Amino acid sequence: MSKRTKIKALLTGEQTGMEVTVMGWVRAFRQNRFIALNDGSTNNNIQIVVDFENTDPALLKRITVGAAISVSGILSESLGQGQKVEIPASVIEVLGDCDPEKYPLQLKNRPSLEYLREIAHLRFRTNTFGSVFRLRNALSFAVHRFFQERGFVYLHTPVITASDAEGAGETFRVTTLDPAKPPLTESGEIDFKQDFFGKATNLTVSGQLEGELGAMALSDIYTFGPTFRAENSNTTRHLAEFWMIEPEMAFCDLAENMDTAEALLKYVISYALEHNREDIEFLSQRLLEEEKSKPQQERSEMNLVEKLQFCLDNDFERLTYTEAIEILRNSPHNKKKKFQYLVEGWGTDLQSEHERYLVEKHFKKPVILTDYPKEIKAFYMRQNDDGKTVRAMDILFPGIGEIVGGSQREERLDKLEQRMDEMGIPKDELWWYLDTRRFGACQHAGFGLGFERLVLFVTGMGNIRDVIPFPRAPKTAEF
Amino acid sequence: MSKRTKIKALLTGEQTGMEVTVMGWVRAFRQNRFIALNDGSTNNNIQIVVDFENTDPALLKRITVGAAISVSGILSESLGQGQKVEIPASVIEVLGDCDPEKYPLQLKNRPSLEYLREIAHLRFRTNTFGSVFRLRNALSFAVHRFFQERGFVYLHTPVITASDAEGAGETFRVTTLDPAKPPLTESGEIDFKQDFFGKATNLTVSGQLEGELGAMALSDIYTFGPTFRAENSNTTRHLAEFWMIEPEMAFCDLAENMDTAEALLKYVISYALEHNREDIEFLSQRLLEEEKSKPQQERSEMNLVEKLQFCLDNDFERLTYTEAIEILRNSPHNKKKKFQYLVEGWGTDLQSEHERYLVEKHFKKPVILTDYPKEIKAFYMRQNDDGKTVRAMDILFPGIGEIVGGSQREERLDKLEQRMDEMGIPKDELWWYLDTRRFGACQHAGFGLGFERLVLFVTGMGNIRDVIPFPRAPKTAEF
Repeated sequence: MSKRTKIKALLTGEQTGMEVTVMGWVRAFRQNRFIALNDGSTNNNIQIVVDFENTDPALLKRITVGAAISVSGILSESLGQGQKVEIPASVIEVLGDCDPEKYPLQLKNRPSLEYLREIAHLRFRTNTFGSVFRLRNALSFAVHRFFQERGFVYLHTPVITASDAEGAGETFRVTTLDPAKPPLTESGEIDFKQDFFGKATNLTVSGQLEGELGAMALSDIYTFGPTFRAENSNTTRHLAEFWMIEPEMAFCDLAENMDTAEALLKYVISYALEHNREDIEFLSQRLLEEEKSKPQQERSEMNLVEKLQFCLDNDFERLTYTEAIEILRNSPHNKKKKFQYLVEGWGTDLQSEHERYLVEKHFKKPVILTDYPKEIKAFYMRQNDDGKTVRAMDILFPGIGEIVGGSQREERLDKLEQRMDEMGIPKDELWWYLDTRRFGACQHAGFGLGFERLVLFVTGMGNIRDVIPFPRAPKTAEF
Repeated sequence: MSKRTKIKALLTGEQTGMEVTVMGWVRAFRQNRFIALNDGSTNNNIQIVVDFENTDPALLKRITVGAAISVSGILSESLGQGQKVEIPASVIEVLGDCDPEKYPLQLKNRPSLEYLREIAHLRFRTNTFGSVFRLRNALSFAVHRFFQERGFVYLHTPVITASDAEGAGETFRVTTLDPAKPPLTESGEIDFKQDFFGKATNLTVSGQLEGELGAMALSDIYTFGPTFRAENSNTTRHLAEFWMIEPEMAFCDLAENMDTAEALLKYVISYALEHNREDIEFLSQRLLEEEKSKPQQERSEMNLVEKLQFCLDNDFERLTYTEAIEILRNSPHNKKKKFQYLVEGWGTDLQSEHERYLVEKHFKKPVILTDYPKEIKAFYMRQNDDGKTVRAMDILFPGIGEIVGGSQREERLDKLEQRMDEMGIPKDELWWYLDTRRFGACQHAGFGLGFERLVLFVTGMGNIRDVIPFPRAPKTAEF
């Protein structure tokens, strides 16, 4: 097999005149003459020029959309419009045929995103999903680079766990017991002692508590792994399996926590703009076309590239929950009763519509809300002296809502235990977590970044199922 | 909170004479005068010099092993042995006390690795595990960098899956059904249609099959995520939850696959030697001391640093399974019946003792075995023309055994279906996998690298439970 060159390298290179071999999949074949060939290294195709008069008609017939082919020829300047270089083919070989009668991915009519979700095994072959998953890749690497440059240690926290970290959320049980005949205890209950791990276990909802254990020795750690929620909600914003990034920093307070989160978001967006500009521009164009069918007032004020650039150029607005409630309560929107849930007073959780109002209408930029009422936040958040609020922070993004949730952690053993008692969190199960408050505790903080929500924001896609290769959701576990 | 500097920066910096603040945990406090302070950024401690005559005795008493403290002072050249710089403390603040009577991690007598496994939430605070997890971090990042530099796309394949990829290995079931009262079908079987995903699901054993779907559009992809085996084996080489790296390359044959795997291993080892030299040297020293208790002939010929360097400097030995069997069968070891499983003929799977003989005694370097009998390999491996072997490759490492397993994949639909039928793999469940052979198939290959085995090799640790933060194994799911 002769060594191939990737199409991206040929399109971005300066040189022509050398013999090259490319391999990829046919995106289009026009006039029995021009093949648009793509190998996934870039959204752009390379044009292959076929000398059809001197090519076996049987071979020409096999050059169909989706077929895998190998082409050799001299890389040449293109005289046609739309591309700088092309390859007049000296050798064409069909590596894998693709029967046009059976191929589910005929690109003549743009297939719907819904349909492509049903053939998610093939949707990587479209421009849209090529760009989405190259961007997902770029964002992943940018996350790692950001933390590595700052001396954080990447920590693999466990996926299977016996503790339900937050006492929150429904979890998936992990078991090897025979579901039809599970072993029972003498009192007739399921005997989890006989399960694989000797106790009931589930899939993690967060690596934070274990992450704190690492931070209490290594100073700065981060996780980047899959997390799970067994919530029975079929929305465009939720998945049963999703990836989270959770940094945890010793000797760190809420302000530094916010600084780190804001710096991270700007770093990864900037990385994507720099390394995957053409993917973002393609998706920006896609979005513009999609929005043409919407009424003028629902269309975005900025295109995708502008929106990302705006995010880099502006400080995120920081204010307390209490200040946000005042803004919302006095907003024309609230007074005209345009919210589904009216904002009447302090203490209630913000709905998505409220978050989006703050971000999209009031401040028109990303917002960080801090110091939420303790009743609506997790047990481990540091209590403020007012006795009412905790040192939480949520980052809200336009079009997305909450993209980051974090807090300074309660490092004072007595305060932490008191809150666990109040909220019914079993202290004996979390003995190891409490140990970090017994032995060399220190001020520390961290946050969780929902990776798919980040990818949604950067790609401009509307449904979270379109930014993860094989989405998991209620009644959905194909592939 | 005044801005702290990390200890690594102070120890590797050139400058002295400026006021600095450091925060970390006390590793030792000698003569009421010298604090060895560590913040996890490096294995090395910074020496704090306490002016004990002018320090409150009550404060001195609180400076105990494990306590978190903050120290400010002028970074100064050290006159003592063993360090270049130190900090004469002008201000010391105890951030978190650590009661020496209760602290489980007194480092006076070196605690055993077994004991540290029981307090895995605190073991990050030891030199050994600090080094191990910094190295794990470095290796993770090196893996990403290797693939990113080569244009691979990082693909998050699903953790929860309805397919049992290889028909191999026992899997963990993932469910939200009530274990005590699962819903039943009319015929009295568990009604998985009522489970969360509408069917029976389990934790993935490999992302390969989904990875191939990505490669058939993006050319080169890799996964790096958790995988699971519900094998009831309590060994020093197996975990129920472990991390795997699985690249998959389109237009790639077995030789290029081996080249990529060898290049990857050399790249990440080289990265660790360059970026975490002092961690490796510490662990090398640890290993030497551990081996002192062993008889001379069982001790390593090379120390850890030499072993890693040797791996970089030598080509891996490549030979076929058939050639390996001949070597083993004719080996003095076999003739003297020193193998537990004698090597008698072609066709049997190699035992760990055989692999290690080839690597450690015969070739004395990493070995790549290819072209195994098809009966002992998975259904998706490309069949050779001899009708007996498949284009598999395993990489064997000294002290580890198999560290990589890979193959060129069977891209011919008829051959693949035939093999699936022979092996009883349900074709209808894998319709999406077969589609890649129907539509634009091409020669492709890939491999799986067991990440913990790599970390074992580079750290020189002996038990796989000591190279993952919180190991999961039969009856083991603490933290």
